Amino acid sequence: MQKEILYLKIATIIEEQITSGTLKTGDKLPSIRTVQKIYNVSINTVKQAFLELESKSLIASRPKSGYYVSRGFQSNLALPSMRQLKLSEKEKAPEDLISKVFNTFTDKNITQFSLGVTDKSMLPIAKLNKGVIKILRNLEDSGTAYEPAQGNINLRRNVAKWSFTWDGHLNEEDIVTTSGALNALLYSLMTVTNPGDTIAIESPVYFGILQMIKSLGLHIIELPTHPVTGVAIEDLKKVLPKIKACCLVSNFNNPIGSCMPEENKKEVVQLLTLHNIPLIEDDLYGDIFFGTNRPKPCKAFDEEEIVMWCGSVSKTLAPGYRVGWVAPGKFKEKLIRQKLIQTLSSPPLYQEVIADFMEHGRYDHHLRTLRNTLYTNYLHFQRTIENHFPENTKISKPQGGFVLWLELDPKIDTALLYDIAIQHKISFAPGRMFTQHDQYNNCMRLNFAVKWDEKTENSLKKLGQLIKQQL
Amino acid sequence: MQKEILYLKIATIIEEQITSGTLKTGDKLPSIRTVQKIYNVSINTVKQAFLELESKSLIASRPKSGYYVSRGFQSNLALPSMRQLKLSEKEKAPEDLISKVFNTFTDKNITQFSLGVTDKSMLPIAKLNKGVIKILRNLEDSGTAYEPAQGNINLRRNVAKWSFTWDGHLNEEDIVTTSGALNALLYSLMTVTNPGDTIAIESPVYFGILQMIKSLGLHIIELPTHPVTGVAIEDLKKVLPKIKACCLVSNFNNPIGSCMPEENKKEVVQLLTLHNIPLIEDDLYGDIFFGTNRPKPCKAFDEEEIVMWCGSVSKTLAPGYRVGWVAPGKFKEKLIRQKLIQTLSSPPLYQEVIADFMEHGRYDHHLRTLRNTLYTNYLHFQRTIENHFPENTKISKPQGGFVLWLELDPKIDTALLYDIAIQHKISFAPGRMFTQHDQYNNCMRLNFAVKWDEKTENSLKKLGQLIKQQL
Repeated sequence: MQKEILYLKIATIIEEQITSGTLKTGDKLPSIRTVQKIYNVSINTVKQAFLELESKSLIASRPKSGYYVSRGFQSNLALPSMRQLKLSEKEKAPEDLISKVFNTFTDKNITQFSLGVTDKSMLPIAKLNKGVIKILRNLEDSGTAYEPAQGNINLRRNVAKWSFTWDGHLNEEDIVTTSGALNALLYSLMTVTNPGDTIAIESPVYFGILQMIKSLGLHIIELPTHPVTGVAIEDLKKVLPKIKACCLVSNFNNPIGSCMPEENKKEVVQLLTLHNIPLIEDDLYGDIFFGTNRPKPCKAFDEEEIVMWCGSVSKTLAPGYRVGWVAPGKFKEKLIRQKLIQTLSSPPLYQEVIADFMEHGRYDHHLRTLRNTLYTNYLHFQRTIENHFPENTKISKPQGGFVLWLELDPKIDTALLYDIAIQHKISFAPGRMFTQHDQYNNCMRLNFAVKWDEKTENSLKKLGQLIKQQL
Repeated sequence: MQKEILYLKIATIIEEQITSGTLKTGDKLPSIRTVQKIYNVSINTVKQAFLELESKSLIASRPKSGYYVSRGFQSNLALPSMRQLKLSEKEKAPEDLISKVFNTFTDKNITQFSLGVTDKSMLPIAKLNKGVIKILRNLEDSGTAYEPAQGNINLRRNVAKWSFTWDGHLNEEDIVTTSGALNALLYSLMTVTNPGDTIAIESPVYFGILQMIKSLGLHIIELPTHPVTGVAIEDLKKVLPKIKACCLVSNFNNPIGSCMPEENKKEVVQLLTLHNIPLIEDDLYGDIFFGTNRPKPCKAFDEEEIVMWCGSVSKTLAPGYRVGWVAPGKFKEKLIRQKLIQTLSSPPLYQEVIADFMEHGRYDHHLRTLRNTLYTNYLHFQRTIENHFPENTKISKPQGGFVLWLELDPKIDTALLYDIAIQHKISFAPGRMFTQHDQYNNCMRLNFAVKWDEKTENSLKKLGQLIKQQL
């Protein structure tokens, strides 16, 4: 048989397995070497077969992991729509809804699609524990003393070093450590705003950011945000004269999944620099990318030090450690004062543990596994939603992070649907939680950083059924 | 020899040793049993001799510890004076001075009378480390997960139980855990005030509280405070119509050392209750008392739940752990929301370690030792200051905590003196740091929770000399 026909034959066999459902979206393909042995062909022939399948978007390669069935990427479901800029519309905080959803957080019988955390099965808990024991032995004063307010030097050094993954040129002096990324945001906001000021944010937006900004007596302008390219720059331009700061989740936005293209990031930074408006950038999902490279944050294009780049390990390693950081640019001294005033210093132990974890390559290693797990979950979710949710369901296509944003038929009210779902022990985050206006009532956020097993799959199918029943 | 003469004879011998300087203020006397053996007399005779010396204020007993030379208590030095209420005087924050003093905090060659922390030699570091290892083994998810925002249940339970030491009737539901007492204050302030409101505080006041209140956009009224009885209630009455909240360090105030008498506490709580004004009470020194009982906080007299009682182990166990709490009374739900918005949750590990330390009696045991050490240091400081500082030095006489407030000759400017002292590797906290007005320029705060050794003693003597040279 001719080589060309050979590779096509193999490709066809695999394609049939995919279309028949033998191989499901998210499944891992056998390795090149395994396929080679099965069909007794050359490695190049297998590679060519895989290339053929990849060109048809049937499979996708994950760096250093292998090939996965990626049929979900060719999703027939549309993207969620972008809303209009609402400048004069009345505000109404979604507090009651948030409280209701929070109240079910600790119930372990509920399938928690609502949480914004990584399932503990994906965290390197045993390795972290070893780190704690090791650090405890070597830590000066065993971590009982105060640290300088800027934070642990080893953590700052490693976060700075880690910035090479996105072409960053940070050094340890540029970083201030915080109690998680949310705390970094708080310090940043308190550093560059006064009560009564207005902040521009993406819409929909993580409700924690909404609540924090409101609690500081600040006003909010929600900017329309595209599910792929992120914040609408034209709308940002319109509100520049009104705002004191801008706050963006530029990479794998929670909840909408957008990742701003580099040229957009550059343009936003240039715009804000020109108007002397600080950009608070929450980059806590940047390390969880499905592609080949970590997307750069806006900070990478920050020539005038106006970007306050915030991050943490709460989404990748240990939420409970409360370890985060900010590179506050030219606002550093003022921000350190804020931290000093509010909490004096951060506990050194966990900062050292995380620094050590990064230093010795364990963070990098863990991230590879985590990304593969999350990517596979993402494909499983896409496939299940495509097969079991109504056909007019719109869905985001994030290239990283671990949340999906769904826009359902306009007749569906997800706040009401929540009450029904919770009776079936299924929880999700209704869209209304992610805005201060009366919108996104037919939307929901699903967390796919849960363990993918039969229970999860059935819960997701059931959710689709419940939506269909409502129509 | 007759019994009466016998006990007097022993008392006279010891008295002569004290007046000759063989026994110095702060020194521990031999135990009753030792003295009994030396003089071959009955225990009762020794007890009578000690009573005689106690009646002359030459020695003082410390519960479960023994007798100490306490001649310093009969100090010839006067108490610092109380200032007038300043309502119209201009404000000027002492930021530059604070920064200057903070810059020398980490220099280990400097004798740090300026710090507000306990020397690490007084902390039970080895025992705490054991606790960390133990807890780490048993902690759910090894502490990597988020906790409910109200905080760790075991810590809340133990803090509530511990309140029996001051007749408190708190239960675990009354407590919210925080990142140190300062953080508890921050949440409390943000819960009951809005920017532009006015807060009444003691004067002088710990500069961290001053800075925090200002950073929230609040105004401050400094209330005259007596070095023994605390805040002037008459002045508080005058400002009631102007204030939104009151913030007091009722027990062993930092820096002035006052401990409000119970009747004052009761009166203040009644007054504030009547006017519906929340009292934020920072009780972080209450467990470090020199007398026989822990002084009650204002919270003990709080019938209408208006007192937000804040505490921590930062002064007694481990500053770097950042473990604190607040019993926010009727403002609990609002305060939990503040915590949730700002940091989501606190790391569980250290909270569990402290809870375990309290639960198994180790906190109680450690406090006994710590109090004895600090009391002895206090006597050493009193004696050295009386002997080596100018005669017109006024000095506080705190019955707990670990700071002294000195008022020097009006010609002395302690901000200038600081520059001279630091050249001699001695640091203290100039009085101007503890007020927003132009006052206390001839005052200083000294931390006596330092290791008492020859270097410390010489530094303190040198400081006295430097002051004398300035006159």
